[in-house]
Amino acid sequence: MSTTESAPGPATGPAAYPATPRTTPTRARERVSYDRELVHAILDEGYLCHLGFVREGEPVVLPTLYARLGERLYLHGSTGAGYLRPARDGGLPVCLTVTHVDGLVLAASAFHHSVNYRSVVVRGTARPVTAEDEKRRAFDAVVDQVIPGRSADCRPAAARELAATAILALDLAEVSAKVRRGGPKDDPEDLGLPHWRGVLPVRLAYGPPRAAEEAGDPQVPGYLTGYARP
Amino acid sequence: MSTTESAPGPATGPAAYPATPRTTPTRARERVSYDRELVHAILDEGYLCHLGFVREGEPVVLPTLYARLGERLYLHGSTGAGYLRPARDGGLPVCLTVTHVDGLVLAASAFHHSVNYRSVVVRGTARPVTAEDEKRRAFDAVVDQVIPGRSADCRPAAARELAATAILALDLAEVSAKVRRGGPKDDPEDLGLPHWRGVLPVRLAYGPPRAAEEAGDPQVPGYLTGYARP
Repeated sequence: MSTTESAPGPATGPAAYPATPRTTPTRARERVSYDRELVHAILDEGYLCHLGFVREGEPVVLPTLYARLGERLYLHGSTGAGYLRPARDGGLPVCLTVTHVDGLVLAASAFHHSVNYRSVVVRGTARPVTAEDEKRRAFDAVVDQVIPGRSADCRPAAARELAATAILALDLAEVSAKVRRGGPKDDPEDLGLPHWRGVLPVRLAYGPPRAAEEAGDPQVPGYLTGYARP
Repeated sequence: MSTTESAPGPATGPAAYPATPRTTPTRARERVSYDRELVHAILDEGYLCHLGFVREGEPVVLPTLYARLGERLYLHGSTGAGYLRPARDGGLPVCLTVTHVDGLVLAASAFHHSVNYRSVVVRGTARPVTAEDEKRRAFDAVVDQVIPGRSADCRPAAARELAATAILALDLAEVSAKVRRGGPKDDPEDLGLPHWRGVLPVRLAYGPPRAAEEAGDPQVPGYLTGYARP
């Protein structure tokens, strides 16, 4: 199936992605999941991924915006980005990783310090989106992934702007999630030590919105005030 | 110079890292910097990187904890992690990327939506740290990178725990930073449109600390209350 000619559909697969050699970890196996709902939830909470690919035999990792529509991810790039050239010729093998840090885990021993996190790793081949309707849908999806609802409240991309934007598609086929939750897992003999043990929660905080200077004092749209968590 | 036999020193190089073909971007060149102080500041603000390497010809990107000591980064792994095996034989070519998101940039046009961020990309060869004194220093540095001051307030790693931990060293030699700051950069003809324009600030928020259940209600150490931003 070409990734550029078919419209992305809703999630229709089984409840879990298949485990493959590439998505089976060599350590911390108990933290790994292939659950589709979990994978979607982690992806939907974010908008920034770290995209890895190989250039001249060496690894490159770049922060990149993405959006999920069904079982497909769209990656936002510029047509000037060098790494997109190989994508035009048969596709670019990539590893796309999204990570949310949820807490810093303090144990009695240095060894058992850890971090609570949720991550998703997607392996696959990214291909440029060329069909204009899919490209526009993907473009809007990236805007809405960052700020849900925003694509309906701004000037849509003109044809020349769409042409100047490269969008890559990456299907969710070989996917795994990894989650670490909960408190410190100290050795029993360390529990009596006088060091504070527990979790320092971490989250992304948004707002308050800052209007561009020349814009005066316009009404802040509802989809932004919802972001302004105390 | 071996990365495993010499102690890491303070920053002693010139004010900027050299630009190389691998650290010269093909786009958004105006956002790139090689300034050493800026690179250090971005690295010191974080503790989680996305580490990219090549396995069987394909890219892999894993979230990993790191610490900076002078001009050297240390990466925390487990001796069971498969990707560390090649690191033992002559070193593992890696791309290490750290990204902080500072704001969501809303423009009048979909095309000029953006994200404010600061990122650092380090290219190089990671090598395992084998000397026990450097390994212990690196281990403590990773703990302190996540929670400054914590390594002095927990049980230090035992020799067998150090042996079960793999630490990779990566020198800061081929490094670049990328920064996007400020408000939306709309086309002049879009400035009269009725869409809200500006920036939604983003930051990591920490706390309040949650003690492990069995720990009763112990005093929260000072280095943690400092984290509890409102």
